[in-house]
Amino acid sequence: MSQPDSVTFADIEVAAKRLAGIAHHTPVITSRTINQHTGSQVFFKCKNFQRTGSFKFRGAYNALAQLRLEQQQTGAIAYSSGNHAQAVALAGQLLNIPTTIVMPEDAPTVKQAATRGYGAEVILYNRSETNREELAQTLAQQRNLTIIPPYDHPHIIAAQGTAAKELIKEVGELDLLLVCCGGGGLLSGSAIASQTLSPKCKVIGVEPERADDATRSFHSKILYSVNNPDTIADGARTPSLGKITFPLVLDYVDNMVTVSEEAIIRTMFFLWQRLKIVVEPTGVLAAAALLEGVVKAPQAKIGVVISGGNVDLKGLGHKIMNYEL
Amino acid sequence: MSQPDSVTFADIEVAAKRLAGIAHHTPVITSRTINQHTGSQVFFKCKNFQRTGSFKFRGAYNALAQLRLEQQQTGAIAYSSGNHAQAVALAGQLLNIPTTIVMPEDAPTVKQAATRGYGAEVILYNRSETNREELAQTLAQQRNLTIIPPYDHPHIIAAQGTAAKELIKEVGELDLLLVCCGGGGLLSGSAIASQTLSPKCKVIGVEPERADDATRSFHSKILYSVNNPDTIADGARTPSLGKITFPLVLDYVDNMVTVSEEAIIRTMFFLWQRLKIVVEPTGVLAAAALLEGVVKAPQAKIGVVISGGNVDLKGLGHKIMNYEL
Repeated sequence: MSQPDSVTFADIEVAAKRLAGIAHHTPVITSRTINQHTGSQVFFKCKNFQRTGSFKFRGAYNALAQLRLEQQQTGAIAYSSGNHAQAVALAGQLLNIPTTIVMPEDAPTVKQAATRGYGAEVILYNRSETNREELAQTLAQQRNLTIIPPYDHPHIIAAQGTAAKELIKEVGELDLLLVCCGGGGLLSGSAIASQTLSPKCKVIGVEPERADDATRSFHSKILYSVNNPDTIADGARTPSLGKITFPLVLDYVDNMVTVSEEAIIRTMFFLWQRLKIVVEPTGVLAAAALLEGVVKAPQAKIGVVISGGNVDLKGLGHKIMNYEL
Repeated sequence: MSQPDSVTFADIEVAAKRLAGIAHHTPVITSRTINQHTGSQVFFKCKNFQRTGSFKFRGAYNALAQLRLEQQQTGAIAYSSGNHAQAVALAGQLLNIPTTIVMPEDAPTVKQAATRGYGAEVILYNRSETNREELAQTLAQQRNLTIIPPYDHPHIIAAQGTAAKELIKEVGELDLLLVCCGGGGLLSGSAIASQTLSPKCKVIGVEPERADDATRSFHSKILYSVNNPDTIADGARTPSLGKITFPLVLDYVDNMVTVSEEAIIRTMFFLWQRLKIVVEPTGVLAAAALLEGVVKAPQAKIGVVISGGNVDLKGLGHKIMNYEL
């Protein structure tokens, strides 16, 4: 925690101030049905209502805003086919920083268009021929651009902790906080916020069974990685925790669990139908752990972070048709 | 307006007091994208977040709460395959009034289960053999039950006006208010509230093209009806405006317009994807009139009532798959 790259609660407070009035203060939703079903008091922090549709906007803005003036002038680059791409593009537009996003050429047209719509230059590559990180690094060197990584960066982790801060400030101390885990930025930021604001709260990270690298890393204390895991939760397809997030997860998180693909899909459609909110597969990981009984905590006060709502509706059509209510 | 069965703003105020702390105060959502697209300031009043998933709960509760003691003891009956059924069932549960709901036997199992889950007795009938209103009347006589109609009742109309009241109190006076129209309860209640709270505001009712009875009735001043219209907006399949709502719509509403089935479906999925809210086909009628350019009001301050979010996800699966983003 005393490492130069690490993150403390003070960093989260500074990030929250920087984001005030720029990022949305997202709503907290409750449901009588879910409280009855779980026997608990459950509070859903809905980051799907954040700008660009996910929590990623906060991290991207906090990182871009702290670039040095010459870095701001030459611009930033990110590699992402998902929520980080749109987040960096919008943050760049708001801060007047040119952005370049490296995306696979088979990324949904709607996501490419949204990213360009925020003013980013989109560079497409062929997944089978090109390594995206190498391509981004080459472009960064050639064009003198600063790489904004998706999670393993102290400014990003600090900003992702502001969601849990908002939640606890709004509903009071918690017994349990459930957070989805891809690269561990949201999870470690949330756990750091919780340790200061709700010290008795247990923080549990949730991953897909099919992308359980962080769970294995947490339990073994050895960094595991996965390669292109086949999960519908695309935000959790990240290969591993990062150099910064891994020690933070070990230090601050109380447990890690996994949920099945079926649990993710059932929970997603359940939340669409019951809470009337559109949540993406990665966004429901934490909720799935609770609603599917992987985590049981009757009579507890539970916070659940819903991380995003950017769904490819058309791609989900056949899942919806085969979904058993 | 001086008729005994009519509704005034004072009735809406009384209904609002009765519903305080029982019905949810639903959120108002805005979208930069939609404001840019329309050139207006648009405020969505989200009744899909109301208890039971639609505005109908307010009307049902306000009507049941005013039954005489002996009526409350013997119970109430309603005929509905949709949102009114669940609304009456939950209101009855909260007020300790036994409820009976007459539903077609092919109503989705999930809706039957939800209605029973709120404690109602569900009586199923065969659509091709039985007239539901006659069946409800027979049961009402046999069992001494009070019929709670879906919209043509002063207590229901008054309660439906509380949504527009909340919206205008929250965002200030409007230039334009767009409201969907089935039987006209929500539309006339909203228009009465608007006339007092935002007297310069134009109120426009929106129907499906395929169920345009109220639009024709409004323009001709003769009550038209439709028979089982084939529209995806199931809440607007009502045969006609009512004895009470028709004169109120003529008195208080400024215009009526219609939207196509394609416009309804496009708008529904657009709102799912952009606002991250689940809205049912009937619930997007007013939004469709604006987003599809049927109503144009650049630089205006516009309220749009989203009436409900109870979708049959599985039934929508093939529409989602064929949807062009």
